[in-house]
Amino acid sequence: MERIFASIITIGDELLIGQVIDTNSAWMAQELNKIGIWVKRRVAVGDSWDEIWKALDEENKEANIILITGGLGPTADDITKPLLCEYFGGKLIIDETALANVKYIFERVLKRPMIERNLKQAEVPDVCTVIQNKRGTAPGMWFEKQGKIFMSMPGVPHEMKGMMTDNVLPGLQKKFTLPHIAHRTLLTAGIGESFLAEHIIDFENNLPANIKLAYLPNYGMVRLRLTATGNNKEITESEIKDQFEVLKKLVAAWTVIDTDLTMQEAIGKLLKSKKQTVATAESCTGGYIAHLITSIAGSSEYFKGSVVSYANEIKENVLRVSEQTLATAGAVSEETVREMVQGALLLLNTDYVIATSGIMGPGGGSAEKPVGTVWVAVGNRSIIISQKFNFRFDRSRNIELTATNALNMLRKFIVDGAKS
Amino acid sequence: MERIFASIITIGDELLIGQVIDTNSAWMAQELNKIGIWVKRRVAVGDSWDEIWKALDEENKEANIILITGGLGPTADDITKPLLCEYFGGKLIIDETALANVKYIFERVLKRPMIERNLKQAEVPDVCTVIQNKRGTAPGMWFEKQGKIFMSMPGVPHEMKGMMTDNVLPGLQKKFTLPHIAHRTLLTAGIGESFLAEHIIDFENNLPANIKLAYLPNYGMVRLRLTATGNNKEITESEIKDQFEVLKKLVAAWTVIDTDLTMQEAIGKLLKSKKQTVATAESCTGGYIAHLITSIAGSSEYFKGSVVSYANEIKENVLRVSEQTLATAGAVSEETVREMVQGALLLLNTDYVIATSGIMGPGGGSAEKPVGTVWVAVGNRSIIISQKFNFRFDRSRNIELTATNALNMLRKFIVDGAKS
Repeated sequence: MERIFASIITIGDELLIGQVIDTNSAWMAQELNKIGIWVKRRVAVGDSWDEIWKALDEENKEANIILITGGLGPTADDITKPLLCEYFGGKLIIDETALANVKYIFERVLKRPMIERNLKQAEVPDVCTVIQNKRGTAPGMWFEKQGKIFMSMPGVPHEMKGMMTDNVLPGLQKKFTLPHIAHRTLLTAGIGESFLAEHIIDFENNLPANIKLAYLPNYGMVRLRLTATGNNKEITESEIKDQFEVLKKLVAAWTVIDTDLTMQEAIGKLLKSKKQTVATAESCTGGYIAHLITSIAGSSEYFKGSVVSYANEIKENVLRVSEQTLATAGAVSEETVREMVQGALLLLNTDYVIATSGIMGPGGGSAEKPVGTVWVAVGNRSIIISQKFNFRFDRSRNIELTATNALNMLRKFIVDGAKS
Repeated sequence: MERIFASIITIGDELLIGQVIDTNSAWMAQELNKIGIWVKRRVAVGDSWDEIWKALDEENKEANIILITGGLGPTADDITKPLLCEYFGGKLIIDETALANVKYIFERVLKRPMIERNLKQAEVPDVCTVIQNKRGTAPGMWFEKQGKIFMSMPGVPHEMKGMMTDNVLPGLQKKFTLPHIAHRTLLTAGIGESFLAEHIIDFENNLPANIKLAYLPNYGMVRLRLTATGNNKEITESEIKDQFEVLKKLVAAWTVIDTDLTMQEAIGKLLKSKKQTVATAESCTGGYIAHLITSIAGSSEYFKGSVVSYANEIKENVLRVSEQTLATAGAVSEETVREMVQGALLLLNTDYVIATSGIMGPGGGSAEKPVGTVWVAVGNRSIIISQKFNFRFDRSRNIELTATNALNMLRKFIVDGAKS
């Protein structure tokens, strides 16, 4: 079976001056992978006629499918649509369904009068299949040229995602004969990338040619991913299943979860299965742990709430950390985070509490407690455990690392508690 | 003056299967722009010898500077270093300074024994200038070839950033004669992209050729950016200053802040100047507003803390929302968010409080209160204002939009209060 390749072209000056981070490409790649399409290259170009034209020519040579996002807005810096029209030798016409959609959005959703520029969004080249946009005004455009597919979509993430899910992915599955691709992922914590690699070197060297292993380090954790490709779904799934079982045993000591879940999803699963609840008492993480937990749908089943005690008076007045502890040990201390756990358990009435206090930087450090000094405590009504960390990064990474480590402490605490 | 172009090549299969979002490129582009280097293209390729080689050849034709990140880790899927060695016709040798650095990191920082793979990280092609890595084990490599610069850096963001700031950017400034690039950005809220464009169409059409205007819509707000290019710093700065003054007057009614700051930075500036404080009482945003506020260094000056009252019992027991309000109006209601503000003002003792309650989805909606229904209240001891929103997106976007709109309500409340 011939392998089907895609290229992703993202268009916009904002990508080249760095004012926008491209999150679309990652999502698109994941979804394409799931149906057996391999992304070969991703290219970002500016709002320049020549650059876009050249990118289309280049990626046409590389891939069977060229997915294009961006450059379809109503403002003057958007030139993608007239370019595509010329590239595929068509002329711009009004698409009546797209026009009705633009009108509907302005009249019913935005409740604003429409202007000339908005009407132009309903224009499409007469040589494409129009993919209607149920979430915005700019329609998608599907072109075919010598067996290749070119698909142009808006850059607004939820509009692009809706179009991909509803039309583009099913359309590509119909158009191409696709191989089967299987992924298995597990998340490890507490071991570095190179030690992990050394530990499983024989396993990696003995993998069959159609299975690849990748190391994806991120914030003190390493995700291990096996990818198998094959023409027969049953055989491919069976091969990857066997290899994954071997891998799981090899790295069991460091495994957070053996599916492609985040730490907060893993904890959610654990708490749901035990019908238990958690709350957070956050100083230096400023609500970030609560945000991570509540970013998961259904988290209200196991998350009750938080006290973010950024100021010491909140630690004292709301969480009942003693004045003396704050005066003698200080806000960033083992004593304080332990008292924060106790206070939050009483106030918020949950099975578990996570507490954090530290110096995230760039200011606020001292010789005794430099930037990156963090205390974390995790506990229930019987036991409180606490740990000191010394991070040495920038503010956002220190916050992220504190949250990850605190959540991993909670996870281990819950798992170990179940054993005792 | 000849324009100097850069291309960014990011290497790694993880980018092509979408398991990692590339945040490096945006940061690099911003920093390059500041010193007058224009990013022409960004390309992502997998851990494949042929693909990397071809990308080097292609970008060599396009740009004066080729910045490469990724593919330098100690594990088996990293092939960038041997490839670069062959591409530039060198052989791999041990760099003694890099070796000492690897040893130092293992002995002093990680406090772990080193293994063979780690030693290999000190190998470099003998045809490059080695850029030491102060934050990790993989050294950077600076190659020159027919007047072009090729710079290879690790993909770990803080390692790459350190190398760029300390060595690469100063090195490029020394190597090339660079033009002056000036940006001016302002953030608007409450007006759509196309209406804004219609409103300032004459301004845009009359801009001089060396000044460009871009619209950057994001989560219900639109950022407007002017970019001027010129050989003379004083003239360029004066030109953009004049145009920006005109633009500011044109869009004053919708302007959040007239510098390139985020909403939370704008609010931080405002509160600091007034020596006032804020707290949040969050239900549906789950601590995200507190996280946004505390992501800004120095926020402890004006942010005291939060109560995240995800469960109704926290709204009642901690924030003192009345049992009757919750029973009759419900948790997602004007009455509840107003009582949350009152309760938090008393408990957390700040000048202002933001309160949120809503249904973020995908579950939890009803005919009367569908997913996306949100109530936000903002107040001080004298006045509380409240507003209902109806968002219609996915969970993460609903959370983001609620936070943005709540912060904008607070901003307007503070500004209007100052006027009365």
